[in-house]
This record gives sequence, structure tokens and C-alpha cells, in this order.
Amino acid sequence: MSDLQSVLVVGTGLIGTSVALALREHDVDVLLADRDARAVRLACEMGAGSPWRPGEHAEPVDLAVIAVPPHFVAEQLKSLQERGAARHYTDVASVKALPITQAGRLGCDLTCFVAGHPLAGRERSGPTAATADLFLGRPWAYCPTEETSPDAVETLLGLIKLCGGEPVRVGAEEHDRAVAVVSHAPHVTAAAVAARLAEASDTALGLAGQGVRDVTRIAAGDPVLWTGILSGNALPVAEVLEAVAADLTAAAAALRRSAAQAAEAGGAAVSDGSEAPSDAATAGEELAARGVPPAMSWVTSLLKRGVAGTGRIPGKHGGPARAYAVVQVIIGDRPGELARLFHVAEEAGVNIEDVRLEHAPGLPLGAAELSVQPQAAAALTEALRAHGWHVPA
Amino acid sequence: MSDLQSVLVVGTGLIGTSVALALREHDVDVLLADRDARAVRLACEMGAGSPWRPGEHAEPVDLAVIAVPPHFVAEQLKSLQERGAARHYTDVASVKALPITQAGRLGCDLTCFVAGHPLAGRERSGPTAATADLFLGRPWAYCPTEETSPDAVETLLGLIKLCGGEPVRVGAEEHDRAVAVVSHAPHVTAAAVAARLAEASDTALGLAGQGVRDVTRIAAGDPVLWTGILSGNALPVAEVLEAVAADLTAAAAALRRSAAQAAEAGGAAVSDGSEAPSDAATAGEELAARGVPPAMSWVTSLLKRGVAGTGRIPGKHGGPARAYAVVQVIIGDRPGELARLFHVAEEAGVNIEDVRLEHAPGLPLGAAELSVQPQAAAALTEALRAHGWHVPA
Repeated sequence: MSDLQSVLVVGTGLIGTSVALALREHDVDVLLADRDARAVRLACEMGAGSPWRPGEHAEPVDLAVIAVPPHFVAEQLKSLQERGAARHYTDVASVKALPITQAGRLGCDLTCFVAGHPLAGRERSGPTAATADLFLGRPWAYCPTEETSPDAVETLLGLIKLCGGEPVRVGAEEHDRAVAVVSHAPHVTAAAVAARLAEASDTALGLAGQGVRDVTRIAAGDPVLWTGILSGNALPVAEVLEAVAADLTAAAAALRRSAAQAAEAGGAAVSDGSEAPSDAATAGEELAARGVPPAMSWVTSLLKRGVAGTGRIPGKHGGPARAYAVVQVIIGDRPGELARLFHVAEEAGVNIEDVRLEHAPGLPLGAAELSVQPQAAAALTEALRAHGWHVPA
Repeated sequence: MSDLQSVLVVGTGLIGTSVALALREHDVDVLLADRDARAVRLACEMGAGSPWRPGEHAEPVDLAVIAVPPHFVAEQLKSLQERGAARHYTDVASVKALPITQAGRLGCDLTCFVAGHPLAGRERSGPTAATADLFLGRPWAYCPTEETSPDAVETLLGLIKLCGGEPVRVGAEEHDRAVAVVSHAPHVTAAAVAARLAEASDTALGLAGQGVRDVTRIAAGDPVLWTGILSGNALPVAEVLEAVAADLTAAAAALRRSAAQAAEAGGAAVSDGSEAPSDAATAGEELAARGVPPAMSWVTSLLKRGVAGTGRIPGKHGGPARAYAVVQVIIGDRPGELARLFHVAEEAGVNIEDVRLEHAPGLPLGAAELSVQPQAAAALTEALRAHGWHVPA
């Protein structure tokens, strides 16, 4: 691991300033540059480093971190290399093939450059949103090419370590396909669902629950910023969107076939709901028993693929998704209500792994869903009830 | 408002048993029926009422609540009416045109039936997940037809009031279009995004963040249950899915055109990142300055429609979405950490409106995002810092 002593950060937005703050906590010398002088001044005031004045710094720094939008990375790299600004270079853009390809075309020295991408962000942007903790425990992808020198990789690994990130070595194309699936295409899809809400009736919005809120939350992100990101990963994102669109088109076709089949059957329910179900009923039989037309089986298979997909998302602490028990409790909308609730959990020796609040529209009441280790659920339920909380059975 | 004294609940799942529990809190006589005798026994043990024995109950009850899957509602209504079981009837299915149409075809008496749909649910199902609080402050859609008698509507409004719901009068077709937009189509879309995760590499899953988790959360729901719901609302859901698919297909085409335009431009970045931005720059100029090809403007417009759609979702307490300030604080994964945090907020007189926990994978540290009234953010930040919490600037 190389001993990082001096770093130049070019671009003092959220990510660049956060890198600088993390390095300052380890007493690394940090120089800061941005096309916006105010952003540099703000970052300096936050203790992220001191302004870079190219003429005054004859010695190259150990590493330059290029923290500018994807389409600017290669030009910056070229310009910095021409000045001999650093011994090694990296970037933090959320796409990786584009800057590497452009850098090659511009004739940059690719032996001392390793493309990188810390998987961290916040809904706020700019230097004032920066924090030294931003990368703690987060994956930090890095993409050496055949030309990259081992020294350059060692230097970047030193940076990731000082920032508290978890290095993930991955090829640039594989990286871009991966973020297309887990970030870029979901963002566009959320926007397409949210776009339906823009056209919908007030009545429809009045019936909105937690589900559609979750599905569309990320669609509130900055359209200009996201256009830049998507543009830099255009083909991998297009492929995923086409696959999603194909599934939705096929689902719509199956639903229309199903409606036609139901109309042919005269709209009659097929089965007598008063009969006891057979314990041996398969899902298909169960559906037929509910009068669901056969064309719906395609939709069922899509929903099953969806369940399989959600099951693959890693859980807390990066391991496989853990099955927590969820304890629901009804809470009032008064100051201190949650404090008392967590205090009771603490006294019972129960660690709350996650919490989700759902407020009941129109009333000062809501439900808190507390995720805990399965073996702790009974103790928490008992403790909450003993203190007068309503925990539904 | 009619004075509800006796109610028959047919179907003692989550919704039916919750209705029964709410009615029992107001001392309404409740009779329970289900094709599954065990479900009735469980509901009775929970205090939801007593078993319905058709031969023994000569007098019709005030209201029968048909809480069975959509495709069974009409048959149940027919059968109950033939027995003279109740003076008025309603159902709770999540689609409304299907049961009304089927009931008409079966020759049911539609003067004494009002279709209904409480917008409430939980991730757990069955009678043991039921709670009298389930409908508190939630919308409860009801769909009278031209045939419906005013008495039947009054009776249903009495039920909704006793359950604590908020009645929303809406036509059956409008209801079905509304839930297609805010619930059914988002569910299928979430499944289509999650289906991509089922095919993705382990590397891709390792780079998953909070965004894709939110988008796909509801896709973990029971495929068989959801197939029944979607089948009962096939055409409205198909229409919304086709609109989503059309947007995604167009977005993919724009991305492919954008990639072609970038290739024609030789992959060169268009602008010098070291220049200061013009304050007067429009979004389009900003994008061009980033070297983003013109074909991306279609994607930007979709993202903007998405932002507009998310802005229409009503916020807490049913009003327009309120803009809370978000205070982020770094927390450790120890018992009592959140209790202490909420305790500090309480002492500072700050009510935490919402909380989102994000755990850092691989480390016992995470970020809590606390939503508070904007004027309370400074006080909360100060109080947390005074007690040693790390609150990023």
C-alpha cells in the first residue's frame, strides 16, 4: 500500500470535497481546484484543503482525483498530465468506459491512470453536502486496464483505504453494465412510473399508498445531472430498459388476452368460494379456483422472477439479505413518542435493525415497523405492550 | 348515519378480520364466516366475533361485508342474498368494476349492495395479522351505482366511520383506473426491474444501493395473490403498463441515438471543464456544455415528467407533500443508539416527522436521515452535535 502524502482534488462538488475531507482526517496534504472559484472557497472553509495554484506547485502530487462529470474526465486528465500535476491519476465518475476511451483518444498516458467509482451519494449536492464519512463501508469500484501500472493501482487502493471504502476490482464494461442494472435503468423506470402520476386524476393521487411512494422516490432526482450520467452509459442502459419494456409489453398483452378469455367465459366466477381449499392445491390450481384466466400465467411468472430478483439484493453489512422479523406498533404524532419506543427496546436489550414509519393520512397516528433479529421479536413485543404500546397480533 | 348493530363478515383474512375487530371495539354484533374453518376459529379467538351458523340466524344482519378475492365477490353476494342474510351488502376487493358487473350478470339485487375498497394492507396476511387500527385515517373508496339505494350507502358510511376510515366516493371504472396507476402497474413495473436483478452478475448486485432497493421493494409480494388482483383489473393495468413501456422504449431509442451521435462526434468532450459556467445557462446549454448529445433531450423531458409526478404525491396527513428539512447523522450499530438520538431530539423540543436508516455495508455504521420541520433543523443539528453526534454540514 503506497503512502499517500499529497493529493490534488479537481472538482469540489459532493464527491470531490468528501474525498478531500476524508484525506484531511489522515493529515494528507490536499490541494483543491474547480472551475467555480466559490466552490473551492467553500471547500477550503470546510477544512478540505487549500487552493491549487498551478504555477506555485512545481512538484507533482502523489495522486490527482478528477471529480468532474463523466464527459469532462478525459480532458481534465490530459490537461493535468501536460502540466505534470501528479504521479498518478484517478476519477470518480459513475460511468467508466467513456472516460477511459476518451482518454485513450486524447493520447493520455494510461499507465498512471486508474478509473474509479465510489458508490456513494446523497440527495443533496455541492461541497456543503460533503462529509468525510461518505464512503465508509461503501463499495468503491476501480477499473485497471492492460496498460495500468501496478503502482497506480496501489496508489488508488491507498486512497480508498483512507476514505474507508471497500475496493471492488471490475472491468470498465462490466462496471457500466452493472450500474445500468442496479442504478441507471431503475432511475429511468421510476421516472416512467412517476410520469403516469403527472397525468393522473386527483382521485388517483388520493389513493396513493407507500408502494408507489417507494417505487418513484428516486425519480425526484435532478434531471440535468441524471441526463449526463445516462448519456455516459447510453448503450448498457438502453439494453436494460429494452428488457424492462419487453416484459411490461408482454405483461400488458397477457392482461389483454386474460380480459378476452374472461369475456369469453361470460365473466362468471369459476369456483365456489365457500368450498374448503385443497391442501395439495398448486399455485396454478389456486389461480384457476379463483376464476383467473390461463393467460395470466405469464404475469405470474414475471412476478416470480421479480421475487427472485429482490431476494438477490444483499442485506445489511453487505452479506446475503437477512430475514428480520418485523414488529409493528401504532404510534402517536407527539414529540418523544419514538424516543420512548426506542428506550423501551433498549431496556429489553433489543437492537432495532431498521425502522420504517408510515403516517396515517388525516390522523395524528401512524405505524412504526421495527425490524429486529427474529429471536428478539417476542421480547420486543412483550416489552412494548408492557409499556402500553399497541402491537397488533 | 345508520346505526349499525349487527354485521356478518364473510372471509376472515387480514381485511375481513380487521373490520370485525374494529366493529367489536364499538360493541357491534359480529358474525364470522370463511371457507376455511381454521381461519374462523382464529378470528374468534382474537375476539373478532362469533361463528356464523346460517340455520340459527333467522333475522338478517344490518350489513354483510364480503371480504373474499375479487373473482368470488359476486357469487358470495348472490348466495347471501338468496339466504336473506343481510339488509345491506358491501365488499372490500381491490378492484371494483369486476364484482359489480358479475353481480349484475348473476341477477343480484344491486339496490342494497355498495362496492367498497379500504386502501389498507400489510405485508403479512391472514387473520393473525389483523388489527382494529388497520383503517385509521386511510382512504376507503366506495362506488355506488345508479341502482344503489341511499340506505345502502348510509349503512356503508356507518361502517367506514366505525373503522376510522376516510370515505372517498368514486365511480367503479375511475377507481379501477386510479389503482391501476397508483398501485397495480407500479407493482408489475417493480417486478420487471427486479427481474433484471435475477439475471444480473454478483458484481452488479454488490454495487446495489438504496435506490434499487426502494424501487423493487413491493416486487417481493406474493405472486399468486397479485395475479388475482391484476387479473381483476386487466385492461386498466394493461393501459398503464403500455404507457410505461412506450416511455421506456422511447428512452432506450433516444439513448441509442445519443450513442450514435457521440460516436459521430468522435467521442470528444465538447467543452472545457475549467471554464466558469454562465449563470444564465439553461438546462439545455448546461447539457451541451457537458458534451451530452442532443438526442438526450427526450430523456431529460421524461425525467422532468417524473419529477412533476413525484411532486403530486400527497404528503403526511393527506395534505400536499410538505418539504421537510433532512438532518443526517452518523450512527453506530449499538443497542440504544437510536433511543439516545430521539431522546436528544425530544429534549430539544423537536418532533421527528420521518426517519430513514441506511446502514453502511461491511461496517457497523450507518446514516440516519431525520425529517423535521424546516425551522427545527438548526436546533436539532445543534442539539445532536452538543451530545457528540456527527452531523455532516
